[in-house]
Amino acid sequence: MGKVFAHMTMSLDGFIADPRDGTGELFDWYDAGDVTVPSADERWSFHVDENSAGMLREVLANAGALVCGRRLFDHTKGWGGTHPLGAPVVVVTHRTPPDAAEWKTTTFVGSVAEGIETAREIADGRNVTIASANIAGQALDLGLVDEVYVSLVPVLLGEGIPYFANLTGAPHRFDDPVIIPGKRATHLKYAVRN
Amino acid sequence: MGKVFAHMTMSLDGFIADPRDGTGELFDWYDAGDVTVPSADERWSFHVDENSAGMLREVLANAGALVCGRRLFDHTKGWGGTHPLGAPVVVVTHRTPPDAAEWKTTTFVGSVAEGIETAREIADGRNVTIASANIAGQALDLGLVDEVYVSLVPVLLGEGIPYFANLTGAPHRFDDPVIIPGKRATHLKYAVRN
Repeated sequence: MGKVFAHMTMSLDGFIADPRDGTGELFDWYDAGDVTVPSADERWSFHVDENSAGMLREVLANAGALVCGRRLFDHTKGWGGTHPLGAPVVVVTHRTPPDAAEWKTTTFVGSVAEGIETAREIADGRNVTIASANIAGQALDLGLVDEVYVSLVPVLLGEGIPYFANLTGAPHRFDDPVIIPGKRATHLKYAVRN
Repeated sequence: MGKVFAHMTMSLDGFIADPRDGTGELFDWYDAGDVTVPSADERWSFHVDENSAGMLREVLANAGALVCGRRLFDHTKGWGGTHPLGAPVVVVTHRTPPDAAEWKTTTFVGSVAEGIETAREIADGRNVTIASANIAGQALDLGLVDEVYVSLVPVLLGEGIPYFANLTGAPHRFDDPVIIPGKRATHLKYAVRN
């Protein structure tokens, strides 16, 4: 049985992007080391430290489906049809795009619960990754998340888009994390206590 | 030469207290283990795991002075005159209390910069600890902080008083942290890049 987990890269003050959706130095860790980890998109790869490489390989190897919000989908132009994780994408949106049928590996659904359920079916026993912060928060509130991964970056941005906001079901309690010390990111894996 | 560092216990979503100043389960780690670490106030002590004990002993052994804001001072009633760290306290406040002269080990100053300078003089080569979040943020913006300690608690509070807010000098960049895995808190020690 696969797990449902959220993974975001977050500044020490809780932001996953600057106010203009820029990720800037938050993603420095993707290029901070000598170990090459290929993404599913052959046009690019990660270059990270050994610890981060182990974490990324595990995420890549077990990715069964990915759930994201419409904003991320639009912002990345649907990753050109191939998400770096190499998994089919489920987009939670209230406005199905007119060209929905042309996205061969993307499914559009109307709610977070439906998104997780659809992704579980697609993943077929592998993991479901939540890649949008607002979807992660709503899924946490719905009790649908097994693990929360945070790649914690040693910077205070001061402002931006938060990972965790507008939680209606807080407090959410986790086990102590598995800690993977990486270069320019400390990877923390928390199991959610339900 | 002593260091100036800020140390706060923070939820994974960045809060050091709930909206009513309650610290609730954030401080569970102070009582989550079998190792007794005496505080400077003989009326109470910490009971923590071995890793957290090492961290606390280091902080206690090197505490030369403590800087806090007026709200924390009032909230704790000046720790009854004896801060658990056993160090003299410098309070940054615009309203010196009428009974200021009666606080034998407490100094009242009017600005953050003056607070850090006064604490450095009192510490006389030992460390200065900043114990209020808003003072820590202002001192960071002034370039007066050497290290930022975060005891990161595996809970999402959803709302509360943030550790880092209203930063005027962000982004602030740190080295990768020294990581001390503790029970119910992951201790992260960041050196500030100036």
